[in-house]
Amino acid sequence: MNIEEAKNSLMALQRKMAAYEHAMGLIYFDGSTGAPRKTAENRGVSLSILSEEMYRIGTSSETVELLDFLDERANELDEKQRRMVTLMLKDIREMQKIPMGEYVAYQELLVRADAIWHEAKEKSDFELFCPCLEQIFETQKRFAGYADPSKKPYDYCLNKYEEGLNMETCDAFFDKVRSGIVPLLKKISEAPQVDDSIRFGSFSEEKQRELAYYLMKTIGLDLDHVGLSTTEHPFTTSLGSHHDERITTHYFENDFVCSMYSVVHEGGHALYDTGSDDSLAYTVLDGGVSMSIHESQSRFYENIIGRSRAFCNLIFPKLRELFPDEMKGRSAEELYRAVNKVEPSLIRTEADEVTYSLHIMVRYELEKRIFAGELEVKDLPAEWNRLYKEYLGIDVPDDKHGVLQDTHWSGGMVGYFPSYALGNAYGAQFLSRMRESVDVDKCIEAGDLDAVNAWNRENIWKHGHLYTPAQLLSRVLGGAFDPQYYIDYLTAKVKDVYGV
Amino acid sequence: MNIEEAKNSLMALQRKMAAYEHAMGLIYFDGSTGAPRKTAENRGVSLSILSEEMYRIGTSSETVELLDFLDERANELDEKQRRMVTLMLKDIREMQKIPMGEYVAYQELLVRADAIWHEAKEKSDFELFCPCLEQIFETQKRFAGYADPSKKPYDYCLNKYEEGLNMETCDAFFDKVRSGIVPLLKKISEAPQVDDSIRFGSFSEEKQRELAYYLMKTIGLDLDHVGLSTTEHPFTTSLGSHHDERITTHYFENDFVCSMYSVVHEGGHALYDTGSDDSLAYTVLDGGVSMSIHESQSRFYENIIGRSRAFCNLIFPKLRELFPDEMKGRSAEELYRAVNKVEPSLIRTEADEVTYSLHIMVRYELEKRIFAGELEVKDLPAEWNRLYKEYLGIDVPDDKHGVLQDTHWSGGMVGYFPSYALGNAYGAQFLSRMRESVDVDKCIEAGDLDAVNAWNRENIWKHGHLYTPAQLLSRVLGGAFDPQYYIDYLTAKVKDVYGV
Repeated sequence: MNIEEAKNSLMALQRKMAAYEHAMGLIYFDGSTGAPRKTAENRGVSLSILSEEMYRIGTSSETVELLDFLDERANELDEKQRRMVTLMLKDIREMQKIPMGEYVAYQELLVRADAIWHEAKEKSDFELFCPCLEQIFETQKRFAGYADPSKKPYDYCLNKYEEGLNMETCDAFFDKVRSGIVPLLKKISEAPQVDDSIRFGSFSEEKQRELAYYLMKTIGLDLDHVGLSTTEHPFTTSLGSHHDERITTHYFENDFVCSMYSVVHEGGHALYDTGSDDSLAYTVLDGGVSMSIHESQSRFYENIIGRSRAFCNLIFPKLRELFPDEMKGRSAEELYRAVNKVEPSLIRTEADEVTYSLHIMVRYELEKRIFAGELEVKDLPAEWNRLYKEYLGIDVPDDKHGVLQDTHWSGGMVGYFPSYALGNAYGAQFLSRMRESVDVDKCIEAGDLDAVNAWNRENIWKHGHLYTPAQLLSRVLGGAFDPQYYIDYLTAKVKDVYGV
Repeated sequence: MNIEEAKNSLMALQRKMAAYEHAMGLIYFDGSTGAPRKTAENRGVSLSILSEEMYRIGTSSETVELLDFLDERANELDEKQRRMVTLMLKDIREMQKIPMGEYVAYQELLVRADAIWHEAKEKSDFELFCPCLEQIFETQKRFAGYADPSKKPYDYCLNKYEEGLNMETCDAFFDKVRSGIVPLLKKISEAPQVDDSIRFGSFSEEKQRELAYYLMKTIGLDLDHVGLSTTEHPFTTSLGSHHDERITTHYFENDFVCSMYSVVHEGGHALYDTGSDDSLAYTVLDGGVSMSIHESQSRFYENIIGRSRAFCNLIFPKLRELFPDEMKGRSAEELYRAVNKVEPSLIRTEADEVTYSLHIMVRYELEKRIFAGELEVKDLPAEWNRLYKEYLGIDVPDDKHGVLQDTHWSGGMVGYFPSYALGNAYGAQFLSRMRESVDVDKCIEAGDLDAVNAWNRENIWKHGHLYTPAQLLSRVLGGAFDPQYYIDYLTAKVKDVYGV
């Protein structure tokens, strides 16, 4: 093997992995969109086989030899190739520590857990889901131990979604955010409430779909490469490479705002993915670097852009065109106030910007304590409800609206939640940097996000997974990450909407 | 390896192949249904990689050893296992003769050909497609030579879609059919024409979709396992096993009959597939035995059931409910006559029952002569047009409505067309057998096809690919196949509709 052959093999290997991910991603996507009701078994069988095949290829002695060969010749590789080898070796070394039987059993557990969680949520019956969830947490702990016994297991989980993240950082971050949010919430509770009746009424799915495509175009998505489908829970996925991206939404006939912001949120993910440099297609560097940077983009478009006064002004004429009866006598300003209403609530995905991080803190606390052995899975519902009372001041009526609301745990995504809160905070600091060279509000008002997108593409999107999150942050921010930007952003928004 | 281990490995190997077929089938399905416009590249890359992976697994020395081991111990296998080994060994021995590079290049050619054919058809520009088509025919000839040099290449192609079929059989079959059809057409041309205005008007896609689901339920499909989507060209596919089946249709706003019979036709394929015995799931015996038996089922439901007077009577009240304005003053009898109108036309998929086989004969003639070296690909359009004039008496205005109309050749499906005509003829003889124990018309009138479906399931569907087409035919028919049943069926239909 010479170095040029090895470089070619490296690219071929990644294309192969991308093909398996394409297949598995599409089987999952199909299950959430068009598949007939009783066809999960076929998908489970195929996913389990394909993931086993991919595991074999990814950890084969041939693969390891190739990567070791290249790793030893890192000085003959360019920056991208070096990063590919580093990331793949890291993955392999972790994967190799997991016995294949356990890995496959875990994939099967997740397929089962997904079905059971759906049923449990439907019936608001945590006990039904509890044994599965116990196994998921146990497996995660065990895998963390295999992967890096020197690390605390929960730090390992955090690190999976955000390279370099640990509990120390999270604790400091959440402390700061909480101490910024709590006084804001107190002020809001003493101010007059916001009227959000504009969002409620009767909005046909057909018209909401038209709105969704309008929003996708408005934020700058290329519809030749980004599709829109309907699912129970909105999500975004790449199929094969960033040239084929799918977002999904869920329409509620009585409230158009839910789907509207789902589309802009998932659209933000899709902008990030499709903004990868073309040279990264079919490699491990394609798409976003980490979940929190990903969320920084999705929530940047959803909240910072999408919930701005300028954006509400921009889209209001379209709303009037689509829903003439419902928008009669309404104004863009009413829309702006409605979509920025702050109110402690039960469901994370429907939370406003200010209380959102509190929802995350509940989940972070619970995961941390389970991993520390201070909390048992069976006691999750009671602790969940206690923390919602303590952090948000509200009573949880049942587990469907409480501990069973999120899909993450049934999907094995433990350690994921902090990404959302971090993403929010990164986004606020990115905005401040962006404003040094881009007149963001003017762009939005003009309905032309090219300059905004160009800034994000140049600074964030095009790099894909080339840098670590910390490296990327430091390049973009030109200094340290500081959650104060986020607190300041929220404070200004609250002042504008509530006058306090 | 002992025999029990080997049997288990045989099942595991087939599950693995089924998973790859699931993935590839779904990528193809996605490309025809929900995929954004410019995402074909990703699918091409992934399909080429996955097909190469599947080829490697299917022809690996481990696989060959396993199958040879089992083949040598055939007397220790049950009937199903023996058939699995036979079929898989046959496939492998043929595949092994094709150099892998050529196999992969051919897959890539087909991906390219599909895109080029679409463009050529759009532009009615055969020259654009000609070089691709030449390569496809050349490759087919070459592969036929690799696979079985003792066979005539075109016989090899016919045999691929219908085990045991050859030109001698086809020639005799088509001669008989043609000599039955020509006098019928002459009689019709002298009779008063049928008024088919009932099918034309304005029919919303939404209502046509409602009709489609009604028809799917009426013919007995289980919607928990069979999905419906919209595509340019209708088709049916299984994903993973017969427990997940998808059919597609295409709605024309001005003519509800097109989609209606597409749904019943594809629904017939889906009935056959989903009727496989459960023990056959994830094996090579799952689904139908051959294309012609498959077409015998799809066209049985489309024509013999769907175009019967009893069926028109059954569904007419539903049509009246869905399209009250369009059906005002119309009758079930008008529908029956309209959907049985006979008229030589340009497009195979829209042809009536009587002229349908003539469309097939044109294609059969052309393929046969290309393989015999008597016709060059570049001369196809002229010969196509000449034969349409000779067989159907009509002038072809352009290649879009002529030689470029079908997707088969761009998909490498050479030798497929005769299946359609054979399927028609098998279906007519099956009907005669079925009538010995089932009052078919009474079932249809009552809207309860259980007895009809049970007969098909017991005699045909449940066996999957356990028997050869010839074995299955002889079991079902209790005697030799005779196209006279088909001629008699058509003659009776023409007499009923045209009174001649």
